[in-house]
Parts: sequence; structure tokens; C-alpha cells
Amino acid sequence: MVGSDNTPPGLNPKKAAYMASDLEKNAKYWGLPIKMPEEFFKLMSSNANLKAQRFLVALEHENPDYLRPAARELWYRMWSRDEPIHEIQNIKEVCDKLKIPNSDKLISEINSPKVKDLLKKNTEEALAYEAFGAPWIVLKREGEEDACFFGGDRFPILCNELGIEFQGPLKSKI
Amino acid sequence: MVGSDNTPPGLNPKKAAYMASDLEKNAKYWGLPIKMPEEFFKLMSSNANLKAQRFLVALEHENPDYLRPAARELWYRMWSRDEPIHEIQNIKEVCDKLKIPNSDKLISEINSPKVKDLLKKNTEEALAYEAFGAPWIVLKREGEEDACFFGGDRFPILCNELGIEFQGPLKSKI
Repeated sequence: MVGSDNTPPGLNPKKAAYMASDLEKNAKYWGLPIKMPEEFFKLMSSNANLKAQRFLVALEHENPDYLRPAARELWYRMWSRDEPIHEIQNIKEVCDKLKIPNSDKLISEINSPKVKDLLKKNTEEALAYEAFGAPWIVLKREGEEDACFFGGDRFPILCNELGIEFQGPLKSKI
Repeated sequence: MVGSDNTPPGLNPKKAAYMASDLEKNAKYWGLPIKMPEEFFKLMSSNANLKAQRFLVALEHENPDYLRPAARELWYRMWSRDEPIHEIQNIKEVCDKLKIPNSDKLISEINSPKVKDLLKKNTEEALAYEAFGAPWIVLKREGEEDACFFGGDRFPILCNELGIEFQGPLKSKI
């Protein structure tokens, strides 16, 4: 967000109030147990998820099969159960729950220059795609220009670009 | 936007580029001939549509049956054919095209204190609903709190609140 000179919408009090109510309606629509973290604005402004990001980068590099379950578990901690994700202890809890092998080694790599560089590279790649927020989805197709989609509300448009029907929330598959 | 302390997203160059591309994809999805006005940012920052807004307010007050066709025609001028809407002459063209009765009287009322006050009242009503942008949709239901929706991308969520299926773009009905 800093790299794209963007400002978080939550800094405007009216937008912040709307976002909370919009989130609630979206949760109902998608059938997801979303709950705004109590200390959301503190979390947003304090780089609280930096270690979790680096952990995911290390995981992607060393044991990519666990990337998606770990990202999902971190999501549930932050966005559903309002549990912390910013301490090493929290990341250990995720590893234990998912029985991730070699988790001590992965965690010890969080502060390594290699992992820090990988995360920087990912961030630079996102900025090269002109990203200014998340989720930022890049659609790559052979012979066509990459197309970017910002936000969780662009799936109907994304499906339309692909020429397939958007089926709405697949609640049975969560 | 000023009353809500909001800033337009187009002021961030990355967001502006994304908005143009997002608009193009939305136009395909909805089957609408949307085309960004060449001088969009000048129009945005110059209150260019103030007379058109006042005209619509006068029309709603005097001849409400024409409100929707006139709003639609003004939309097509600005968002599809890149024709001006900021001069009285442009509003006359809309009146002629739609054969709006008493249009001279309506146009003469654009600068009247009564019409200015009606528009101010509408704006204050929107601000009371915590609006910070447009379109701002208010869902009113008996015995329930009003629900607000910001943006043209919230129809699936709005339908979900109403317990009805969102059918996607109804291209045959445009």
C-alpha cells in the first residue's frame, strides 16, 4: 500500500463504518464466518502480519503443498476467530494444528535474508502489476495481455472475461 | 464527496489506470456501452454536472415521470457518447430529445433558490445516510434497519439481503 501511494479506506470514519457493515453483508452472502478483528486498525497500521507473510514465503519455497492450508488457517485466525497471528508463538500454533513437517526450520528462516528477499521480490512483482491493495488477482492467458482484478467482488467480471458462468457463492464447498 | 471528507480514487494514478480497465471489463459484463469521458478528471473536479443535478431536482418536483428518462439520457451523454452536460444548451438538447413539456420553465428554475435548496436537502439526506460516494443505494424495509450499499457491484449482496436470486446482467432489458 505504501509502495503504491495508496491510503487505507478505513482511515475515513464514514468508510470505516460502511466497511464493517459491508463485511457483515458479504459474510452472509458468501457463507463465511467473517468477523472484523477487534483491533483491526491497530493491526493494519503496525505491520502485524509481516512474520506471517514471511512464514508463508518460506513455506511456499520449502513445502508448497502446505501454503494454501496455512494461508487459510491464518485467515481464519485473523478474520473469523480474532486470534493473533503476529507472534512466532501464533505461527507455531498454526504449524502444530496442520502438522507441518520441519516447522522449526521454517520458523527459524522467518528472519533470514533469503526469506526477506523472497517477500520483497513478491511485493515488487505485485507493484509491477500496478497493485494498490489486496486481494490482487492476475489473470494470465496465452496470447493475451494479463488482466488484473482488485477485490473479492470481481469474480463475476473475472468469469465473464473467461467466458464462463459465475455461479455465486459455492457454500457447499467451503 | 467533500461533505464526507472522502477523496476521489482517481487522484491516485495507479487507481485511475485500474479504474479505466475495470470500467471496460464492467461494460462488457453488463452489456453497457460505457466509455470514459476524455476529460473525466476535469469534469470530476469542476462541479460540471451541477446544473444537470439541479435540472433533475426541478424535474422530479414538477414532472417526476420524466426523471428517470432524463437521468438516463444524461448518463448516456456523459458515460457513453462523451457529450457535454454542463451547459444549459446541453440540458435543452435533452429536453428536446425527450419532448419534456414546459422545459423552458424547468430550465429557468435551475438557478432558483427553491431548486438549489431541494438539491441541498437531497445532499444532506445522503450525508445523513453516511454516503461518501455514488451510487449510494438505501434499502428500506418495514420493521428493519435501513441498509446502505455503495457501488454498482453490490447487487448480488443486495439481492441476498432481500432473499432473492441475483440473475446477473439482464442484457435483454437494457
